[in-house]
Amino acid sequence: MTTRVYNFYPGPATLPLPALKKAQKDLLDFNGTGMSVMELSHRSKEYAKIHLEAKSLVRELMGVPDDYKVLWLQGGASTQFYMVPLNLQKNGKSMEYVNTGTWSKKAIKEAKFYGEVMVVASSEDENFSYIPKDIKFSDDAAFAHITGNNTIYGTEYHEWPKVPGNDPLACDMSSNIMDKVIDTKKFGVIYAGAQKNIGPAGVTLVIVREDLLDRVPENTPTMQKWKTHVEKDSLFNTGPCWAIYMCKLSFEHLKDLGGIPAIEKINRNKAKILYDIIDKSNGFYRGHAKPDSRSLMNVTFNLPTPELEEWCFKEASAKGLIGLKGHRSVGGMRASIYNAMPIEGVQVLAEFLKEFQEKNQ
Amino acid sequence: MTTRVYNFYPGPATLPLPALKKAQKDLLDFNGTGMSVMELSHRSKEYAKIHLEAKSLVRELMGVPDDYKVLWLQGGASTQFYMVPLNLQKNGKSMEYVNTGTWSKKAIKEAKFYGEVMVVASSEDENFSYIPKDIKFSDDAAFAHITGNNTIYGTEYHEWPKVPGNDPLACDMSSNIMDKVIDTKKFGVIYAGAQKNIGPAGVTLVIVREDLLDRVPENTPTMQKWKTHVEKDSLFNTGPCWAIYMCKLSFEHLKDLGGIPAIEKINRNKAKILYDIIDKSNGFYRGHAKPDSRSLMNVTFNLPTPELEEWCFKEASAKGLIGLKGHRSVGGMRASIYNAMPIEGVQVLAEFLKEFQEKNQ
Repeated sequence: MTTRVYNFYPGPATLPLPALKKAQKDLLDFNGTGMSVMELSHRSKEYAKIHLEAKSLVRELMGVPDDYKVLWLQGGASTQFYMVPLNLQKNGKSMEYVNTGTWSKKAIKEAKFYGEVMVVASSEDENFSYIPKDIKFSDDAAFAHITGNNTIYGTEYHEWPKVPGNDPLACDMSSNIMDKVIDTKKFGVIYAGAQKNIGPAGVTLVIVREDLLDRVPENTPTMQKWKTHVEKDSLFNTGPCWAIYMCKLSFEHLKDLGGIPAIEKINRNKAKILYDIIDKSNGFYRGHAKPDSRSLMNVTFNLPTPELEEWCFKEASAKGLIGLKGHRSVGGMRASIYNAMPIEGVQVLAEFLKEFQEKNQ
Repeated sequence: MTTRVYNFYPGPATLPLPALKKAQKDLLDFNGTGMSVMELSHRSKEYAKIHLEAKSLVRELMGVPDDYKVLWLQGGASTQFYMVPLNLQKNGKSMEYVNTGTWSKKAIKEAKFYGEVMVVASSEDENFSYIPKDIKFSDDAAFAHITGNNTIYGTEYHEWPKVPGNDPLACDMSSNIMDKVIDTKKFGVIYAGAQKNIGPAGVTLVIVREDLLDRVPENTPTMQKWKTHVEKDSLFNTGPCWAIYMCKLSFEHLKDLGGIPAIEKINRNKAKILYDIIDKSNGFYRGHAKPDSRSLMNVTFNLPTPELEEWCFKEASAKGLIGLKGHRSVGGMRASIYNAMPIEGVQVLAEFLKEFQEKNQ
């Protein structure tokens, strides 16, 4: 008998149960092929269908315009941290970044290998508890870069900064891709490691506007160019077929739920349940993120003492509420409530937090 | 009711049935965690155990010496094609490659981005039907590079070329890693995309001697350096956890069979069954590879006409013998008989080929 827990890990994270059940059912024999999806040649017609459907579902769910390409790559956002500046550099123009936490800093570090980086705004002064307002990008940079959601600090952009001129905006959406309706046209490039909100670890979704593909220097190794993967429809070499298949199953589930408008509503409800607990706790729970920067995906908060935080984490784990320890940069607790976390899980956690406060304050 | 076929795809390829069954059984609830392996945080103790065991099994099965590091990377052999020259370059010294086919050529192409490449031997003159003899590497190169097995042409090294001096030998073993007992100490670097002989697509095994880790230029993006991944034990960023888990399950199966000495014996038997069919067919089946260069993993052969080849492929597919079409560079048929292909599959194929010849010659 399978007993599933509520999994609040920041990523890899919980996946939709219907997707897992389908993967399990078909594991030895996919669609009557007599083979696992893991055993299908990436050049077979059966795998080609999976590959195409996964891409089509991204286009359909996000409303990706025709002049954008959808890619499945490997290496995580950490690989895009260098592929973005490598592929978007332009005549020695500077690259403009906003620093909203650990992952922004990692992206900035890699960009410096390719030229001058300007950090145009930062929230480091208050331990990354907010998204900077009135971000001013110049109109003469190679590109602008932001981190859409900050998993560690629990902050998220709720409106996108404007980039003057035609400079493209690049966004790391690893922890909030598809959490709410967005307009892809506001971005030049969107990238996301799959393992938080859309699938398992091992595949990175990249959405790039096609006019940006020719900036990459000629003398660049083949695998490092987005263009290579666009020209071969992400089949230049053998891709992470199983991870792409799991993304497809998770997209099908999302579509069944009503797509991104529906999940946005659910996500806002889930987040409100937890932020209400924090706001009504009379200071027992202290949210890390400032209210107007709060993430829909990662709810970060502290308790009165580190001992209580440890005790709360242990009690929660014992009740099947897993993965709630905050990152060491913030301490305390973090509830990662990605698309695949059902509202029931959030309700159970909220109930637990109320009781924990009553017993321990 | 599950009906499994015999899967002769060149990769992604057949996986051990016990590994697939275990993955299926535990898919919703791994070891009582209430989570799938795909949902475990890569920093959790449960995943840490999988990660460590997969690495330890590589060390144990291959007898990897202590001064070699075992890495799990992403991006396939195609990514190592540039990581090898990038990480092994030395004071502008030349890089020496042997060209035994399509994948060697791709490796050579990427090395040229990093400096002068010398092709010291090639079998292109006879459509890559043999492994060159008496390969002479110089004693003053940055490194030497070979392709251990040539999936497309069905050729394989049966003894390793000597590299004079202390230059390291790098080897792409994507299609023959663990097919036979080897002495790791003969190599500076061994790399292999997992999807042919040890697991599913999405993870690359790299084994590198630790004294080679400091050659990489300082100004190299973090993800491109083997050293980064060594220092973080392949957890610098979120790795392809599921693919590593599947490799672990396949290694456990290999260990149960008796390890690499046992599978080598089985592989030699499997290959002999098919090469005997070719050799005793009075020219109906013509092997592409010269006898002393024949691969244990990929048996390539032609029939008297392209029409017969097409008919043979279709008849085989109809009988549940899947993936036998040869690569367009060679045409004809290719039976990929990796470690996970049971001898029964090869026997059924041999019987089919005998009957096909009787009916059609």
